[in-house]
Amino acid sequence: MTLSRSQSAHGQSAQSRSGQSLSILGATGSIGRNTIDVVSRLPGRFRVEAVSANRDAEGLAQIAIEAGARLAVVADPDAYAALKAALSGTGIEAAAGQAALVEAATRPVDRLMAAIVGAAGLAPTLAAAARGTTILLANKECLVTAGTLFMATARAGGATILPVDSEHSALFQVLNPVQALNPVQVLDPDRLKAVETVTITASGGPFRTWSAEQIAEAGPREAVRHPNWAMGAKISVDSAGLMNKGLELIEAHHLFAIAPERLAVVVHPESIVHGFVSYRDGSVIAQLAEPDMRTPIAYSLGWPDRIPAPTKRLDLAELGRLTFETPDLRRFPALGIAIAAMEAGNGATTVLNAANEISVEAFLSERIRFPDIAKIVENVMDRVARTGIGEPASLDEALELDRTARDVARALVGEHIATAG
Amino acid sequence: MTLSRSQSAHGQSAQSRSGQSLSILGATGSIGRNTIDVVSRLPGRFRVEAVSANRDAEGLAQIAIEAGARLAVVADPDAYAALKAALSGTGIEAAAGQAALVEAATRPVDRLMAAIVGAAGLAPTLAAAARGTTILLANKECLVTAGTLFMATARAGGATILPVDSEHSALFQVLNPVQALNPVQVLDPDRLKAVETVTITASGGPFRTWSAEQIAEAGPREAVRHPNWAMGAKISVDSAGLMNKGLELIEAHHLFAIAPERLAVVVHPESIVHGFVSYRDGSVIAQLAEPDMRTPIAYSLGWPDRIPAPTKRLDLAELGRLTFETPDLRRFPALGIAIAAMEAGNGATTVLNAANEISVEAFLSERIRFPDIAKIVENVMDRVARTGIGEPASLDEALELDRTARDVARALVGEHIATAG
Repeated sequence: MTLSRSQSAHGQSAQSRSGQSLSILGATGSIGRNTIDVVSRLPGRFRVEAVSANRDAEGLAQIAIEAGARLAVVADPDAYAALKAALSGTGIEAAAGQAALVEAATRPVDRLMAAIVGAAGLAPTLAAAARGTTILLANKECLVTAGTLFMATARAGGATILPVDSEHSALFQVLNPVQALNPVQVLDPDRLKAVETVTITASGGPFRTWSAEQIAEAGPREAVRHPNWAMGAKISVDSAGLMNKGLELIEAHHLFAIAPERLAVVVHPESIVHGFVSYRDGSVIAQLAEPDMRTPIAYSLGWPDRIPAPTKRLDLAELGRLTFETPDLRRFPALGIAIAAMEAGNGATTVLNAANEISVEAFLSERIRFPDIAKIVENVMDRVARTGIGEPASLDEALELDRTARDVARALVGEHIATAG
Repeated sequence: MTLSRSQSAHGQSAQSRSGQSLSILGATGSIGRNTIDVVSRLPGRFRVEAVSANRDAEGLAQIAIEAGARLAVVADPDAYAALKAALSGTGIEAAAGQAALVEAATRPVDRLMAAIVGAAGLAPTLAAAARGTTILLANKECLVTAGTLFMATARAGGATILPVDSEHSALFQVLNPVQALNPVQVLDPDRLKAVETVTITASGGPFRTWSAEQIAEAGPREAVRHPNWAMGAKISVDSAGLMNKGLELIEAHHLFAIAPERLAVVVHPESIVHGFVSYRDGSVIAQLAEPDMRTPIAYSLGWPDRIPAPTKRLDLAELGRLTFETPDLRRFPALGIAIAAMEAGNGATTVLNAANEISVEAFLSERIRFPDIAKIVENVMDRVARTGIGEPASLDEALELDRTARDVARALVGEHIATAG
């Protein structure tokens, strides 16, 4: 990596329209910006087609100009005027709204980085999957809220799904589907037979060494102090309770068609080993890297090749040690609840995710205590299950179930506050 | 693995001639016996064609009978009568001598386990390589004494070389050449470009935490106490001085066509991580397993499939920690000497290996001290280099260079004893 940032940005804009075409949904977020960082250092390798953001028109315009994109889309129509003004005279097309977002997602490109956070990412990513796009998947909801539907759509459309999350990228790298264009076909029965366990690691979060009593007293400030990754508040809270690992198991279950009973979590405070596969000959193949999202992003951008990423190189002797622990389901019940949801099926995980979002929100605004998150999620799952959870067969059904679960969760948060008060 | 040993042995002999054909050279040694152990638990998967031993006629006959082999060969003609007697009435053919050994090695089989220890393995394994055999390579000399010749012969003959040594099996598993029948073709230039470093691990041996002064006083008893693997005396001494890692780097250099400057060693006392490859995107792919030779043996037997091996499963949480250190070339100069030999070329490594064998022998019989091993090896390399070391172009040339180096080493051991006395 000898190119400086400014040189490479120059090279990128000067390279006209060669290289692989790439669109980036969620370009102003952390994954989006890291994607631009990796891409801008490889002039000529990629050309950016479309970029999108929720409502940060200024930030999006700047990215669109630097990356030499053709189209910039804000999801929020209210941000359209600002985007249009910021792109004035650049020749970059500006658009806004849901239909424009779906259009940005389905423009023919070699790769689509799907990094919209939350349920807003579902419709555009699903539309891209139906068109057979090669999707670099960073949107969790596609798998947790609508995993069965999403993977079936990808299969039917002939889409290739390349995971971006560090744990799933690790598993993908280890399972190494060089021969399969469509990763869902990778694990043919013969190959799957040789796999005994598929494990993702958990840092253990900021409460790893805390007692149950200490955890019960923890506020949002304590919960968001993640030891190894700089992440948003919501995902940091998920990480503190190990709910994030439960959600990641569910994602792995869908991505690799691995049965729940073969999926495992091990706590690994250094966050160097991200995932591994254990085979019936006693062999374990693991992926390791310094915790830096640019490594899995580069892998998804380059696959099946490996392109350079400007990350710190792993030096095991310098690190000295890697440690591992069994996750404590007593102090971190969310993981067990998520595993139960995975076993119950996709409807249950839709409810899990929705109830968790509402509960974490309530915790972050200090309306409930940390252990209440898991309690409310479990309670929502019980209540919605009593009415019967079907497998969502369409995006509308998934979103309807998501809304129902959120309503029940909000009611429970309210009851809870009333009881506590 | 529900079959007991006796059941599976029964199944094996009852299965007549189905499955993949397999010959085992060096069947009475540790690799040979472990191979039989893995194979005997998979009735119907393999049928044993030929087995060989140096001179243990009784041991070989027992293995041949249990495995249902067709041919048993002792290298030593003096052991022929005993073998013939032991196999009397079994229908298993008995033979002896070098020509019979080469015949056993070149009988058409699906896989040949080449596990003869020492230079005696060169001629039969090279003959098998020339015939395009799929060779499970456990003989170190093929790569250290005649690596360039051996790999060129394998390429020309269309042979597939599957490494059995745990470190090289690790690298092979990680580089994962599922598409290439001939592993030497695996690392095409594009793929190699993405590899930054290829690392094997070293347990550090029994002297890892010893001072240079303590090491200088160590006798054979101390040197052969390997912390993790039960191995022969010679290889244990190599391990105590890190010479074994130097030899393994040389093997990796030939097997995977990796330039010396990209090869590295890290000390890892637990011997769980066996090798890893570091890529330019910051990603590291590693192979881990409990230290048990049946895992790499099973991998070489099953490749590209994975067959079951009855080994203890790796449990990282149970282990708790993995530690890593930089090797100390001051206390363990043999590693540096071996790396210099690898950089100098195949003639130098022939000399290195020969001089090392003589020196280790002298140390084991308490004629020289531990640090003298590396000193004598270095001295032999200097002296032989002064007369000019060419790249051995034939087996005869390699063996001639090997003999020359042994003679010089013996003379130096003698001088050394005279001086010390």
